[in-house]
Amino acid sequence: MRAEDMIMISVDDHLVEPPTMFDSHIPERFRDRAPRIVRQDDGADVWTFEGAVIPNIGLNAVAGRPKEEYGIEPTAFDEMRPGCWDINERVNDMNGGGLLASMCFPSFPGFSARLFATCADRDLALAVLRAYNDWHVDEWCGAAPGRFIPMGIPVIWDAELAADEVRRLSAKGVHSLTFTENPSTLGFPSFHSDYWDPLWRALVETDTVMSIHLGSSGKLAVTAPDAPIDVMITLQPMNICQAAADLIWSRVIKEFPTIKIALSEGGTGWIPYFLDRLDRTYDMHHLWTGQDFGGKFPSEVFREHFLTCFIADPVGIQLRHDIGLDNIAWECDYPHSDSSWPTAPEELALVAAEVPDDELNKITHENAMRWFSFDPFAHVAKADATVGALRAQAAGHDVSIHSFDHGRFERSGQGVDLATIARAATA
Amino acid sequence: MRAEDMIMISVDDHLVEPPTMFDSHIPERFRDRAPRIVRQDDGADVWTFEGAVIPNIGLNAVAGRPKEEYGIEPTAFDEMRPGCWDINERVNDMNGGGLLASMCFPSFPGFSARLFATCADRDLALAVLRAYNDWHVDEWCGAAPGRFIPMGIPVIWDAELAADEVRRLSAKGVHSLTFTENPSTLGFPSFHSDYWDPLWRALVETDTVMSIHLGSSGKLAVTAPDAPIDVMITLQPMNICQAAADLIWSRVIKEFPTIKIALSEGGTGWIPYFLDRLDRTYDMHHLWTGQDFGGKFPSEVFREHFLTCFIADPVGIQLRHDIGLDNIAWECDYPHSDSSWPTAPEELALVAAEVPDDELNKITHENAMRWFSFDPFAHVAKADATVGALRAQAAGHDVSIHSFDHGRFERSGQGVDLATIARAATA
Repeated sequence: MRAEDMIMISVDDHLVEPPTMFDSHIPERFRDRAPRIVRQDDGADVWTFEGAVIPNIGLNAVAGRPKEEYGIEPTAFDEMRPGCWDINERVNDMNGGGLLASMCFPSFPGFSARLFATCADRDLALAVLRAYNDWHVDEWCGAAPGRFIPMGIPVIWDAELAADEVRRLSAKGVHSLTFTENPSTLGFPSFHSDYWDPLWRALVETDTVMSIHLGSSGKLAVTAPDAPIDVMITLQPMNICQAAADLIWSRVIKEFPTIKIALSEGGTGWIPYFLDRLDRTYDMHHLWTGQDFGGKFPSEVFREHFLTCFIADPVGIQLRHDIGLDNIAWECDYPHSDSSWPTAPEELALVAAEVPDDELNKITHENAMRWFSFDPFAHVAKADATVGALRAQAAGHDVSIHSFDHGRFERSGQGVDLATIARAATA
Repeated sequence: MRAEDMIMISVDDHLVEPPTMFDSHIPERFRDRAPRIVRQDDGADVWTFEGAVIPNIGLNAVAGRPKEEYGIEPTAFDEMRPGCWDINERVNDMNGGGLLASMCFPSFPGFSARLFATCADRDLALAVLRAYNDWHVDEWCGAAPGRFIPMGIPVIWDAELAADEVRRLSAKGVHSLTFTENPSTLGFPSFHSDYWDPLWRALVETDTVMSIHLGSSGKLAVTAPDAPIDVMITLQPMNICQAAADLIWSRVIKEFPTIKIALSEGGTGWIPYFLDRLDRTYDMHHLWTGQDFGGKFPSEVFREHFLTCFIADPVGIQLRHDIGLDNIAWECDYPHSDSSWPTAPEELALVAAEVPDDELNKITHENAMRWFSFDPFAHVAKADATVGALRAQAAGHDVSIHSFDHGRFERSGQGVDLATIARAATA
């Protein structure tokens, strides 16, 4: 298929929260305690909340910039492409990149909103979390109907409240909840505990997908403190296989047979090996470990429950039938450093040159629509939804790669190791 | 190729050390302090050394037993198949399983012999380690010329002494050294430090392969304390991608351009995805991280340095050209629980039915011979080396699957979790 004829829905993008996000949504009594943006002496814009300081990390907002400028330093709003945080600019960038719709993960609260779990005042934490979700649904997604798959952030500290919030969001049309790869490493009961049952029940009752993003376990794939950052960047996607294995052998899958899980930014090329490994483990060991899927093999069970996705993954494309054609979605990852925006459609068209149209349509948008109960065509005519049509609409919007560097940093980049990124992340 | 016509060399098997192993090799002054076997009150045979007690774990010695009997309990020599620890029985089992040659990793000292690093008396530790290596080369491998790829265990606590031992072993014909996936997690300097340079120098000067076995980082792939053991079994092989990423981006590869590394028991089906991920990471990030392979892509560099292996990996077989035909070897994993002994040749023949003979020969034995500088045909005529010929020689040797269970255990197996295996391993 030609790039301009594709219809592209991304199941993994990111938003940088704008400073004004809480203005219209936080109850009056908490107004002074809501998270707020502060400009530091070094020129970085950071979020502050109940004594915590959270920088916007540069590497998470590099869309449209030259690769020489990538870096981990804390950044400021005027050092980012405005599409990172401004909804109108975002839609312009989506049009310019040929992207029909997008599901946007949070930034400063963490993928599982664990920042809010650290707040001792639980009423405040819940009010802030609900304000975040209301802003996300009403303002971010609401600004452009049919252009965003709405996604809630979870009450990670309380399974009952988490279930309540899933139901509240469901009434607002939300069918995706970002969660953690591993609640155990965050200090909560694991996937093997029955603690989370109220949440699983709410997810299946509302047909809400649990979207677990790489890095949401709170544990980076760090081999050694002096390892170069390239090691972590390489390993992060495959690291999500830990969550996949954890869940597939857990009671969650067995006791909630309609639960759905998306492995976000995990890539796909490793999945066929992983499925074979699951089946071999079952075959060699279930007689003594007691695993039982009612006669099914775990690879079958995987395909009933898991959606995978990729940015551009030649191996995953080649092996798409071994993964499951209904289990693969595409992602753009705007504005993170793995994204190929604004030429992502051309990148996919090249990698998927041999894929028949009906199969590629599943990957580019149909699977995303079905898994997330999302219908953009109620708002955008199909003829206006293609890469070519959206780009025509964006004519005049500048999508050229250019610098947003204001000269604050020496960007030699040489020898960046994980101790450095840890310092930057806690600066 | 028919199973009986294949010539099979396994680059990953295991030996259970026999009680008498130190008798002829430890200097007289350390004789009373060498590791020794003690039978516990519960019937288990455990190694003791300088106050440490190390059980033989059942799951590591289950060859030839019904799967219902697999388990993690500490075991005794008379609860194992004798081929686990008796060299003559091992050769009989190799013949019965059609296995020409085998590289055997250690058991009780750990894959990187870190047990000996815990010994405060460094003279004793070094004497024990050298005695281990002399026993391995002279008695275990020496009992059947051409049937074993000799492998040394490392002086993990001292890079200079480690280099000396590599050179000493090289003079005895050894071209493989078991090492750790990650010295950093064991408390030693990481792969990114220059501490290990004397060892790397010795390895390249003696053409010795660094063989790193899954699980040798001292960190199991544990997601949560209450995760079922199936999670860990599933994840262990792919977990070795951490070592592969750690090394490929390290200075080791760049400064020792002829160093060779074997990823033992890591499987192969995930490698093509991993290579693509390495290249994408390089492409997107090297301009700011400073990685430089002299114009090469990291996937090319991987193929110059890494040998991978599999037990039976349909995805790896399918993608063998994307991995590199010269970078894949076969393994049997006898007597561990992932092994298909004694029908491993039939399993491979089935999985590799479509593979041309010249390609399969590389995988079954030619790559192992070249990487490990090993020539079995100096001792065994090629016509006598096939699966069929070896099995004919073993006629009368019992390779039937049968119980070695003496009734000490209740083997329900249900609900075995990682806390249980941790208790068993430290009992």
